[in-house]
Amino acid sequence: MCELLGMSANVPTDIVFSFSGLMRRGGETGPHADGWGIAFYEDKGCRAFHDPRPSARSEVARFVRDTPIKSRIVICHIRRANRGRIALENTHPFQRELWGRPWSFAHNGQLKGVKRWRLGAYCPIGSTDSEHAFCWLLDALRARFAAPPSDRELAAAVEELARRLAALGVFNMLLSDGRSLFCHCSTKLAWLTRRAPFGPATLVDADLAADFEQETTPDDVVTVVATRPLTRDEAWTVMEPGSCVVFRQGNRVTLPRRRAAPVTRRKAA
Amino acid sequence: MCELLGMSANVPTDIVFSFSGLMRRGGETGPHADGWGIAFYEDKGCRAFHDPRPSARSEVARFVRDTPIKSRIVICHIRRANRGRIALENTHPFQRELWGRPWSFAHNGQLKGVKRWRLGAYCPIGSTDSEHAFCWLLDALRARFAAPPSDRELAAAVEELARRLAALGVFNMLLSDGRSLFCHCSTKLAWLTRRAPFGPATLVDADLAADFEQETTPDDVVTVVATRPLTRDEAWTVMEPGSCVVFRQGNRVTLPRRRAAPVTRRKAA
Repeated sequence: MCELLGMSANVPTDIVFSFSGLMRRGGETGPHADGWGIAFYEDKGCRAFHDPRPSARSEVARFVRDTPIKSRIVICHIRRANRGRIALENTHPFQRELWGRPWSFAHNGQLKGVKRWRLGAYCPIGSTDSEHAFCWLLDALRARFAAPPSDRELAAAVEELARRLAALGVFNMLLSDGRSLFCHCSTKLAWLTRRAPFGPATLVDADLAADFEQETTPDDVVTVVATRPLTRDEAWTVMEPGSCVVFRQGNRVTLPRRRAAPVTRRKAA
Repeated sequence: MCELLGMSANVPTDIVFSFSGLMRRGGETGPHADGWGIAFYEDKGCRAFHDPRPSARSEVARFVRDTPIKSRIVICHIRRANRGRIALENTHPFQRELWGRPWSFAHNGQLKGVKRWRLGAYCPIGSTDSEHAFCWLLDALRARFAAPPSDRELAAAVEELARRLAALGVFNMLLSDGRSLFCHCSTKLAWLTRRAPFGPATLVDADLAADFEQETTPDDVVTVVATRPLTRDEAWTVMEPGSCVVFRQGNRVTLPRRRAAPVTRRKAA
C-alpha cells in the first residue's frame, strides 16, 4: 500500500507543512520506501518531482520540503511497491495530457486484472497496474468527450469510471486536470478544509506545529486530502468506502446525483 | 532565441559540469532569463525539472547543479521568450508519451504559421509555437507507425518531419524518446563526443574546469550538444544548417540516405 496527499486551494499555497509529515512515512515513521513523487499545478502548467528513492532519505524530497512552491492543486504519493519494480517509470503521480490539460494521477491499492483492459491512445511507460488504470480512464474520457465537457459533466464521468475501476480491487485515487481535484475512496482517504478562523495544527509524524492564522488571509480556503489524517488536532472527515469527492478552489463541489437507469417506454400497440 | 543543451552517453553520467556553464547564460552571462527546464532519462522513465524563473537565479537550477543526477540522455533548455508569455506551461522541454515511451522536446527558433497546422491526438497546454510543433511531430509519427518502428526507420522519419518544420523558419531542436537523441540544426547547434583518452576541459561561461579522466572509465562515451560550444579547449563540431544528427549510447548513428522520389513507371501502350 502507498500513501496519498492532495491539496486544493483558492490561492497559491505551499504544502510544505503537510509534506514534511508525509515524507517521514517514506522509510522513517512508515514503510513506504519505494519512491515518491509530487505534482504542482501553477496556472495552466504542472511540474512534478519524482524520485525512486525513499522520501525520508531523498535529496529531492528535502529540496521540496525546504522550498515553498505555491500551487492551487497538489498531488503527492509515497510508494510501497506491490506491482512493478522500484524504478522511476513506476513512480506516481503519472502524467498525461488530454484536451490540452496536464492530468496527474496517484493511486493506492491493487486492481486485479486491469492490465487486460484494452487501451487506445495512451500506453503505460512502466509496469504498474496503476498507470494502466490511469491510461484506461483517460482513454474512456477521450472517447466520451471529443472536447472538454463542463466541470460538472466531467466530475460525473470521473466518478463513474472510478467506480468501475474500484470494482477490481482497492482504488484510493487522487486525480487532477488542473481545475478540479478528484478523490475516490475504496478503503482509506480523509480530508480537511481549512478556512477562517484559522487555528493551530500539529503533525502526527513530526514534532512540527503551524499556526495558519499567521500565514493566511480571511478569504483563503485550503483543503488537504490524505490516506490518514496528518494532524492530531484538527477535525478530518474520513471518507466512506466507495465514495467520491471533488474539490475546486479549495471547496467541495456537489456531484450530480446519479440517475437511475432510464425506463424504456413502449409504444401502445 | 533560446539555448539548448543535450547529452547522450553509454553509461549513466551527470551533466553538472555542462549545466553549470549553461545556467549562467539564463540571466547572467546571457539574456535567456524567461525560464528553463531539464529532462533526465533513467532506464525507461524520465523526470524533468521546470522553472519559469531565470536559471541564474533559480533555486531549482541550483539544486540540479549541486545534485549529480546520473542519466543516459538529457535535454535542457533556457528560454528567451518570443512567442508565449513567461509561464510554467510555456517552459521547455515539453513532454508527451507515444508507444509507451516518454518523449521530450526542446526548440530554439520560430516557426511562422505552424499553429495553423492541424493536430490530432496531442494538444498544446501552453501557447508556444514550439509545443504546437512538437504535438504535430508526434501526431505524424503516430499516424505513420501504429507500433514503434526500428530505431533506423524512426530516425529517418524524425529527420524528414524536422525538415518540414524547419521550412517554416528557424528550427534548432533536441528530441528524445529515451533511446535516441535527435538533433536538428537550422542555424546554431554544435556537438562534442568525449571518449578515452579523456582530457581536461574549461567552461566558457564560468571559472570552472574538469578533468574527465578522473571521473570516467576507458569505455565511457559521452556526447554533449549545445547551441554554442560550452568549453574553450575542446574540438566541437559545428553542425551544418539544415542537418540532422542522431546519437545513441553516446555515439553518432549514421542516418539512412534519403531516397530520391520514386520514378513512376508507365506501362508501354
